[in-house]
Amino acid sequence: MTLDVDLASMDPAALDADDPLAGYRHRFVIPDPKLVYLDGNSLGRPPLAALERLARVAAEEWAGRLIRSWDEWLAAPLRVGDLLGTELLGAEPDEVAICDSTTVNFFRLASAALDALPDRRFIITDSANFPTDRYVLEGLARDRDRQVAWLDPDPIDGPTVADVEAALADHAGDVALVTLSHVNYRSAAIADLAAITDLAHAAGALVLWDLSHSAGALPVGLARHGVDLAVGCTYKYLNGGPGAPAWLYIRRDLQTTLRNPIQGWFGQADQFEMGQRFRPADGIAGWLTGTPGILGLAAAEEGIRLSAEAGIEAIRAKGVALTEYAIALHDAWLEPRGFTLGSPRESARRGSHVSVRRRNARELTRQLIAAGVVPDFRAPDSIRLGLSPLTTSFTDVARGLAVLADLADGPETASQASV
Amino acid sequence: MTLDVDLASMDPAALDADDPLAGYRHRFVIPDPKLVYLDGNSLGRPPLAALERLARVAAEEWAGRLIRSWDEWLAAPLRVGDLLGTELLGAEPDEVAICDSTTVNFFRLASAALDALPDRRFIITDSANFPTDRYVLEGLARDRDRQVAWLDPDPIDGPTVADVEAALADHAGDVALVTLSHVNYRSAAIADLAAITDLAHAAGALVLWDLSHSAGALPVGLARHGVDLAVGCTYKYLNGGPGAPAWLYIRRDLQTTLRNPIQGWFGQADQFEMGQRFRPADGIAGWLTGTPGILGLAAAEEGIRLSAEAGIEAIRAKGVALTEYAIALHDAWLEPRGFTLGSPRESARRGSHVSVRRRNARELTRQLIAAGVVPDFRAPDSIRLGLSPLTTSFTDVARGLAVLADLADGPETASQASV
Repeated sequence: MTLDVDLASMDPAALDADDPLAGYRHRFVIPDPKLVYLDGNSLGRPPLAALERLARVAAEEWAGRLIRSWDEWLAAPLRVGDLLGTELLGAEPDEVAICDSTTVNFFRLASAALDALPDRRFIITDSANFPTDRYVLEGLARDRDRQVAWLDPDPIDGPTVADVEAALADHAGDVALVTLSHVNYRSAAIADLAAITDLAHAAGALVLWDLSHSAGALPVGLARHGVDLAVGCTYKYLNGGPGAPAWLYIRRDLQTTLRNPIQGWFGQADQFEMGQRFRPADGIAGWLTGTPGILGLAAAEEGIRLSAEAGIEAIRAKGVALTEYAIALHDAWLEPRGFTLGSPRESARRGSHVSVRRRNARELTRQLIAAGVVPDFRAPDSIRLGLSPLTTSFTDVARGLAVLADLADGPETASQASV
Repeated sequence: MTLDVDLASMDPAALDADDPLAGYRHRFVIPDPKLVYLDGNSLGRPPLAALERLARVAAEEWAGRLIRSWDEWLAAPLRVGDLLGTELLGAEPDEVAICDSTTVNFFRLASAALDALPDRRFIITDSANFPTDRYVLEGLARDRDRQVAWLDPDPIDGPTVADVEAALADHAGDVALVTLSHVNYRSAAIADLAAITDLAHAAGALVLWDLSHSAGALPVGLARHGVDLAVGCTYKYLNGGPGAPAWLYIRRDLQTTLRNPIQGWFGQADQFEMGQRFRPADGIAGWLTGTPGILGLAAAEEGIRLSAEAGIEAIRAKGVALTEYAIALHDAWLEPRGFTLGSPRESARRGSHVSVRRRNARELTRQLIAAGVVPDFRAPDSIRLGLSPLTTSFTDVARGLAVLADLADGPETASQASV
């Protein structure tokens, strides 16, 4: 698909018919096919396999084999971590583990990075970064006597290489950690992971990427770009389930030079010998903490497996096509109704969602949901349309934006944009 | 039931017939009634209601209402926390939240306690405390320039009031935190929570109890005893599921004077306004961190609800009866075969499991499991028999110990102890 054609006038059914990933929609539980769900970037739909797996884990593994199932469960955080890391994140084997929440993992890795560079005072991040990252950093800076250097980038384009370069220069030799989201949660702007990682390294700092809006949506190339540290969730594009366990990535050589601030028994070598002193297990296993939630992990594995099967390049191609289509419809139907685009226009700079902005966006979001179109609202004025490549159809996009155009005209006005 | 009768010679079927909680066994999924499961203190059996609930959460809440289910899910950590806290732990409302793992919660509360008393150098704990607690404390002491004063108590009786008193005197005015397990994971010894809490307070220290082997097994009286801080898991006697989310308790007045070291977005007031600075929510809500795992939490709620329905006093009475019976059978059948009791004999000093010790315990445990009796082994020489009041029958206890007596005689010798 190219922008040479008038995308907005294309028949969404024809686009769906040409979609090589269209069949994946049938691998998910979709009880109400009429519902237009544009929030898979917040909570992905459940794979059929996840429901089957949950029932099996509960009835056979938990009820049936009881404690003996730990013989298999113990391997799950690293088995699923490897699947995610090698197939979807471009990590090497034994660099990713599924564990804890994104917040706890972010805390642990940021904390370990600061501990590794005790004489450097600054943490560079972005004032539009995801709240939990900002709050964790605020607490860490306070407790470790460090300071956050807040970037204040363009709200749509997000932090640029030049923004980071300037901040590194302002605090030359004194930056311990550069941490950003790869895809901004509000605008979907993609930060230049490769260049920013290189800049941080050249300045002697460590880099920690939040990949919550990237994992399962676009290729990341963690190993190729020499990324130090990363975290992310599995409940968005990876369709892992509500509050599904998160993951962390630590480049191999840093797994032993950095130190896990939360030394738990699941990170212990010879865990069940219960020895007196903490002796971390080799590899990424040494970064596990407490007992992993097996029900959530089992469901997440099925979501991750589906994305791995579809292939991250194919997923990315569809994500680009869906967002290009949504932007074309925005330009045709919404812009005349007072909307502005809250996401980058260049597809290479945009993740898999599109934000559209207008006054009264909060109320419009409420009306959309009442009309069977589910996006989400992000303060102060954004309606965020999440286009999840394995489950969102072009027809969903067209129907959703047509309803939004209708609503923007007010309840009494009929729309010319209906599909 | 009293010890005046010869308990070992009583008919276990008659004891089961007299058991007011016997009916609860039918509320659990028990696919193989012949399996003698004596490890409910490690992983409790699944309530029928948990399997039904999981299926409903997946199909209706996740698949059906999708992101809109967060309207209800958001309240779950505190709703379930209140149920657990008020019905089973003796806490006041709004003092318990279900979240994260025991390890992460233990880290957070121990860390907050140390931060609150920066001029005090020592942490008192027990060298036989559960590994994850010891490892976390070892890391915290290193990172915060503190020192662990290890108690080295009797391996069966666990730390006494005198042990703690002596350690407090050794480091008078210099102890920040006293932290122990209420019920020892190996011997089941109960520490004197009330007296030790009072001692710690008199010395100006904070106290943090690990209640993993207490919650759902015996009354704790957190509020009555003025306990500062506590954590525990939900996958043992509470039957919450494998790796089910843990909980934390913070006495009301400490919720704002202590500071959460992991400031996550779920602890933020007006979470979805995503404001620039961290402003903790009021009450225990300010101690949440990342996105809670909803599948695990839903299953855990059903387990907690069953225990609350049965009542903690009735549960404790049955726990005492089961362990007294197990000890009577140990004395009659195992002691003559070279076993010694690894748990306190006085029921008021013993939780709901019984450890029996003998050379070759690891191999005997393997043989027991092969013979359809599932306890667990704890290095170096303990077989731990977990007697979970809602699911373990007196017949289970008799059959399990009879098989063990058989095995102890070696494969060729017939037992006189068969039931």
